[in-house]
Amino acid sequence: MRELSEIRVEIDAIDNEIIELFKRRMDCAREVGYYKKERGIPVLNQQREEEILAAVQQKGGEYGAAARLLFANIMELSRALQHNIIGSGKALRDTIMQARELPPADGIRVAYQGIPGANSYEAAQVLFPDAQLGSCGSFADVFDAIDSGDAVFGVLPVENSTAGSVSAVYDLILKHRFYIVGAVDRRIEHCLAGLRQSALADIEIVWSHPQALSQCEGYIARHGLTAVSKANTAVAARDAAKEKRLNVAAICSPAAAKEYGLQILDTGLQDNPYNTTRFIVISKQLYITPDANKISLCFSLPHVKGSLYNLLCRFNSLGLNLTKIESRPAEGKDFEYLFYLDFTGSVHSDNVIDLLCQLSEELPEFSFLGNYRE
Amino acid sequence: MRELSEIRVEIDAIDNEIIELFKRRMDCAREVGYYKKERGIPVLNQQREEEILAAVQQKGGEYGAAARLLFANIMELSRALQHNIIGSGKALRDTIMQARELPPADGIRVAYQGIPGANSYEAAQVLFPDAQLGSCGSFADVFDAIDSGDAVFGVLPVENSTAGSVSAVYDLILKHRFYIVGAVDRRIEHCLAGLRQSALADIEIVWSHPQALSQCEGYIARHGLTAVSKANTAVAARDAAKEKRLNVAAICSPAAAKEYGLQILDTGLQDNPYNTTRFIVISKQLYITPDANKISLCFSLPHVKGSLYNLLCRFNSLGLNLTKIESRPAEGKDFEYLFYLDFTGSVHSDNVIDLLCQLSEELPEFSFLGNYRE
Repeated sequence: MRELSEIRVEIDAIDNEIIELFKRRMDCAREVGYYKKERGIPVLNQQREEEILAAVQQKGGEYGAAARLLFANIMELSRALQHNIIGSGKALRDTIMQARELPPADGIRVAYQGIPGANSYEAAQVLFPDAQLGSCGSFADVFDAIDSGDAVFGVLPVENSTAGSVSAVYDLILKHRFYIVGAVDRRIEHCLAGLRQSALADIEIVWSHPQALSQCEGYIARHGLTAVSKANTAVAARDAAKEKRLNVAAICSPAAAKEYGLQILDTGLQDNPYNTTRFIVISKQLYITPDANKISLCFSLPHVKGSLYNLLCRFNSLGLNLTKIESRPAEGKDFEYLFYLDFTGSVHSDNVIDLLCQLSEELPEFSFLGNYRE
Repeated sequence: MRELSEIRVEIDAIDNEIIELFKRRMDCAREVGYYKKERGIPVLNQQREEEILAAVQQKGGEYGAAARLLFANIMELSRALQHNIIGSGKALRDTIMQARELPPADGIRVAYQGIPGANSYEAAQVLFPDAQLGSCGSFADVFDAIDSGDAVFGVLPVENSTAGSVSAVYDLILKHRFYIVGAVDRRIEHCLAGLRQSALADIEIVWSHPQALSQCEGYIARHGLTAVSKANTAVAARDAAKEKRLNVAAICSPAAAKEYGLQILDTGLQDNPYNTTRFIVISKQLYITPDANKISLCFSLPHVKGSLYNLLCRFNSLGLNLTKIESRPAEGKDFEYLFYLDFTGSVHSDNVIDLLCQLSEELPEFSFLGNYRE
C-alpha cells in the first residue's frame, strides 16, 4: 500500500491535467457560443447533450454515474457562458434596467390586510413610517387596491417560522404579475388580552386569526379554551373590547391590546418562542434600490433526475447563497414542481443579471419577483 | 472561425481525456479510502479539501469559479466512495436492518386528529380499513396516544397543496423521534353543509377548521359570510347539526355532511381546485415494507455557499429523484437552515442505504424519518 503522501502527489498531478483540459473545453464552448450567435442557433441542444452524457456514462465504467454527473455540470457551465455571449434574456434585462428607485414614502398610500393593531399594520408602520396606511379586508383586496391605483404599495406576510409559507400571497403575486420591492422580519408576540374586569381564570373562549390560533394550539389545549376565528388578531381585540364578555379574550399583539384598551392577561402564548413572520412590500412597478440585497424567483422544473441540482450549479458557480427554497407540486401537472427560491444578491452585479437572463430563457414559467433590501 | 463539427471533434477528444483522468482520480480516492480505513482516519479532511479548491480556483484563471465548483463535486464523489469503503453510519444501518415489516392492520389501534367524518378520519379509513380508529383532540394528543401505547399508528396531515407544509407535525415527529411508515394523498373537497330546512341564501355564518376557512377565503369573501373556527371540519358539521341555526353552515367534506345528516348546499368551495392533502402514518417503531418507495429526511445545513448543491450531488450521482425540498430557518440559529427532503427510493437498494449512512455521519442533526409506500 502506498503512503498517503504518494497517492496525493498523483492526485495533484491528475488535478492539474483536468484543470488544463477543462479550460480548453471552456474555450471551445466559447467558440461554439460565437458560432451560434452569428448563425442565430439556440444555446441548448438537448440531443447533443444527451448523446455526450450517454457516452460519458458508458466510458466511465464503474464510475459511469459519477462521470455523467460531472459532465452534466460542465455542460451547464458551458451553456451559461454561451448565453452570456449570445445575450439571452433581453426582455428581462430591459425590464430590470428600466426599474426605478423607490419613490419617497412621504404621504404615499400603503395597503395592508387588517385593521390598526394588526401585525401587518405594525410591519407597514416600520416599513413606511410616513405613509398613509389603508386597511383591507383580505390579501386579494390589497392586490386590488394596488391594481386600481388606490395604493402604491402593499404589505403582506409571506412566511412564518412556525406555519411555513403563506402560499396564497405568492399565488396572488404571480396572478397579478406584481413585484416584491421590500421585506422585513418581525418577531410575533401573541398575548392573551381581556377586559380590565376579567381575570385569567375567567377566560373560556379565545378569539383570533386562524394562523394565530394554530400557533398557540398548545396553550389553548392546556387551558381547555374554545377557539373562535376572527378575520385577524386586531379584529379579535377590537371585538373583545366591544362585546365586553368576561369569559372572552383575544389572542393578539401587545400593540393591539393597547390599541383597543384591553388588559394583557398572559404573554408568550405561541408554542414556538422563535415565532417570526416575514412581511414583504409589493408593488405594480418594479423598483430596485441601490442597496437591494435579496432576489426572489419562481419557476417550474420538470420532474427530471437532477434538474434542481443542475440549476443550483449556476448559482453555486457564481458563489451565490440561497436563503430559501421550497417546492410545491404544480397545480394540475403531475410531474412538474413549482419552486420558490430566494438568494442573496443584486442585479447591480453583472454576474447576477446575466444569470437571471439565462434562467429567464431556460426555465419554464420563470418569474423574477424582485430585488429588494431586506 | 472553425466549423461546429470541427470544434466538436476537439471537445469530444478533451472529454475522453477528462474521463480517463477522472477514473484514475477515483481509483486514487479508493486507495485513500482503504488507507484511512486501516488507520482509522476520518473521511473528511476539510483543510486538504479547502487547499485543493483554492489552488484549483487560482489555476482555473477566468474559469476559476467554475473549476472550483467542478472539483467540489469531484471531492464530494470521492468522499461518498470512501465512506462506503470505511463502512460509515453503522448505527443507522443497524436501525434500518432491524426494521420489521408492518404488522397486520386487522383490529390494530390507529389514532387520528378529529372525529368521524374529519379528513384525517377518512384518510385513516383508507389506510387502515380494518383498524380501530381512535379520535384525538390535537396533533400532540396523537403522538401521546402512540407514546403511551394506546395506539400503534397515527394518521396526520403533513402537507396541503394550497397551504403548504404542516410544520407542527414535523416538529412533533422530531421531538418524539417517531418514524413515518406510510403516506397517502387525498383530494380535499370542501362543501357547504346546512340544515335540511336551510337554503343557500339563508347562510350568513360558516363554521370550519381554520385551514379550511383559509382555503375557502375567496368563496367566503364573495358571499359576505362570517367565518368562525372550529376544531376541525367534522366538528363544524356535528355542531351545525346540533345547534340547528338556519343561518349557519359548516364547511366540511361531503362525508362529514352525510355523517351528521346535513344538506349539501354548495360544493367545490376551495379557491384552488387542486386541493390535495398528504397524510402520513407515524409510529414509534420503524417499519419498512418490501414495496417501500419513498424516503423522508430532515437535517440542517450551514449557511455556506453551495452546501445544498454539494449535498444534491450525492443524490444525483445515484440517479435519485427528489420529490420535495423545503428549507426553514433553524430555530434560534442565525446561519443555519433546517431542510425537509423526500426522495424516491428504498433502503433495500445498497446505493440508497449507503447514501443514508454517509449522510448520517456528515450532516448535522440528520434524521432518517422513514421509508414507506406511497
